[in-house]
Amino acid sequence: MRALVTGGFGFVGRHLSHHLVSCGDDVAVTYQAGEEKADDVSVNQGVALPKSVQTIALDICDRKAVFDVITLLKPDAVYHLAARTFVPDAEKQARDVFEVNLFGTLNILDALVENSPTSRILYVSSAEVYGEPKPGSLPITEDTPLRPISIYGVTKASADLAVHKYAKRENLHGVRIRPFPHLGPGQDERFAISNFAKQIAEIKLGKREPVIKVGNLEARRDYSDVSDIVRGYREALLNGKRGEAYTLCSGKSVEIGEVLQQLIKVSEVDVEIQVDPERLRPVDIPDSYGSYGRAQKDFGWKPRIDLEGTLHSILGYWLENLA
Amino acid sequence: MRALVTGGFGFVGRHLSHHLVSCGDDVAVTYQAGEEKADDVSVNQGVALPKSVQTIALDICDRKAVFDVITLLKPDAVYHLAARTFVPDAEKQARDVFEVNLFGTLNILDALVENSPTSRILYVSSAEVYGEPKPGSLPITEDTPLRPISIYGVTKASADLAVHKYAKRENLHGVRIRPFPHLGPGQDERFAISNFAKQIAEIKLGKREPVIKVGNLEARRDYSDVSDIVRGYREALLNGKRGEAYTLCSGKSVEIGEVLQQLIKVSEVDVEIQVDPERLRPVDIPDSYGSYGRAQKDFGWKPRIDLEGTLHSILGYWLENLA
Repeated sequence: MRALVTGGFGFVGRHLSHHLVSCGDDVAVTYQAGEEKADDVSVNQGVALPKSVQTIALDICDRKAVFDVITLLKPDAVYHLAARTFVPDAEKQARDVFEVNLFGTLNILDALVENSPTSRILYVSSAEVYGEPKPGSLPITEDTPLRPISIYGVTKASADLAVHKYAKRENLHGVRIRPFPHLGPGQDERFAISNFAKQIAEIKLGKREPVIKVGNLEARRDYSDVSDIVRGYREALLNGKRGEAYTLCSGKSVEIGEVLQQLIKVSEVDVEIQVDPERLRPVDIPDSYGSYGRAQKDFGWKPRIDLEGTLHSILGYWLENLA
Repeated sequence: MRALVTGGFGFVGRHLSHHLVSCGDDVAVTYQAGEEKADDVSVNQGVALPKSVQTIALDICDRKAVFDVITLLKPDAVYHLAARTFVPDAEKQARDVFEVNLFGTLNILDALVENSPTSRILYVSSAEVYGEPKPGSLPITEDTPLRPISIYGVTKASADLAVHKYAKRENLHGVRIRPFPHLGPGQDERFAISNFAKQIAEIKLGKREPVIKVGNLEARRDYSDVSDIVRGYREALLNGKRGEAYTLCSGKSVEIGEVLQQLIKVSEVDVEIQVDPERLRPVDIPDSYGSYGRAQKDFGWKPRIDLEGTLHSILGYWLENLA
């Protein structure tokens, strides 16, 4: 199966590419021009792409370029991951974030409708579309009302709903995935757990005083392993229902402080935890977790890797990359 | 109370302006430059605006102009109706429709946050955000999953969710209304019921053979009177909960053919109904109706005018304007 992954140089794109190649797919990935150096693992500290993967520079906001790539490749499967993802930036640059996350997606959808209408497309939406659910509405399911509280969440919801429209009106075989947070080797250290793991690895390697700096630790989040998530993407693309939305998650929440304690335990180092006022942010949502019941029912997905296994991988990644 | 109505020259904007003036509000409306002649009732065949209303030419896509108007007026209440509304056009011009319906709305929201943060805003979303609900999910409530099947529906949902974000994150007092179809004097004859009423009025006035041309008559829709809807807008703005979405509707559906029969009965003319193949469009959604339970609970709204009353008004309007 010929697969095209947009945003292939990102954290999840790299893991997905490995998974697709391991399934025997013929994989091409797109990246934003300027990201080339990011493929140098020594610079990026990310997971290297498989050697067999074809890489294509593509600005998804360039409609003509998107049409050209789709027309040329006529992929059986498009995994559309390319997006502006780091949320705090989004609030200040709403228009730019819509440009990429919404109009970039519409470019791909239109290109498929016109030039490759039998392609399937998996759109990676986000659990951020649910935002702040009403009290008593956990676990979050695909039928939980959308109540985004960030521009990022609004942009993802907009494109998510557009995919529904294209599936119903243009007959495109599109599915939408709303993943909860996922962790793994190569994740940007702006994300809390990756950041903690990096600090602990530095301590273990003697590159840092045994003090770890943290922000809020009270919020509870639903964490999955990135390997489980990318496996779900392929299963959803193959066996999900046309137009449907699927939540992928672990099904339970854990306090961020508890994740940190587990990381410390896995690392077998003694560390002092120090709250860094600069890292403290208001916690909008104290607790959030989803249900993967629909994914399980429709294509048999459930998570396989537990949190401890994931933390082992992340710590191992940092130890290897910082050594 | 100083009220600003965007899209004030539209069908609903005119009715809303009358209602606000009758409540003692000080009303300004914005219109799109070029719409001036539309205020000439003889050209537009719309309901004239009250004389006391201030009119302001404003392109809501012009961010600076929007900021200027908001800064100048500092309205207590903004009723944001301006939008590209006629749905069939939208599919071909997605980008333009987002420009007005989404980014125009973001311009207003940002202007309020920066220059008039105590203003309240009512965003007129649409029942089109629900699109094609899953079987067995009638009546539609505010918690029914969004499944739009038109670009128009996607644009309205996007802005609707953005209003939620601004209410929660920027502390703006915004409410969202998702009205089901509403009827009344002055509605564009591209809409089926207004079109039927115009044809019947022409027949009654002897300006047309006693044959009425129709498209599909089987679909069932939930129709309200525009007067009930605009009353609900003011009540929602004053007493709705910050950030909440409200469905306004009649709570029941009626077959379009049955509405036509009622119109004919009200008109007391003999007509032949002829199906015009050019008017036949695929019916996406055979039946749709909502529940106004949340609006009733939160601010005591319920419809007052029954369908027969509405049809009398519409027919009377056309008879007067075509005479």
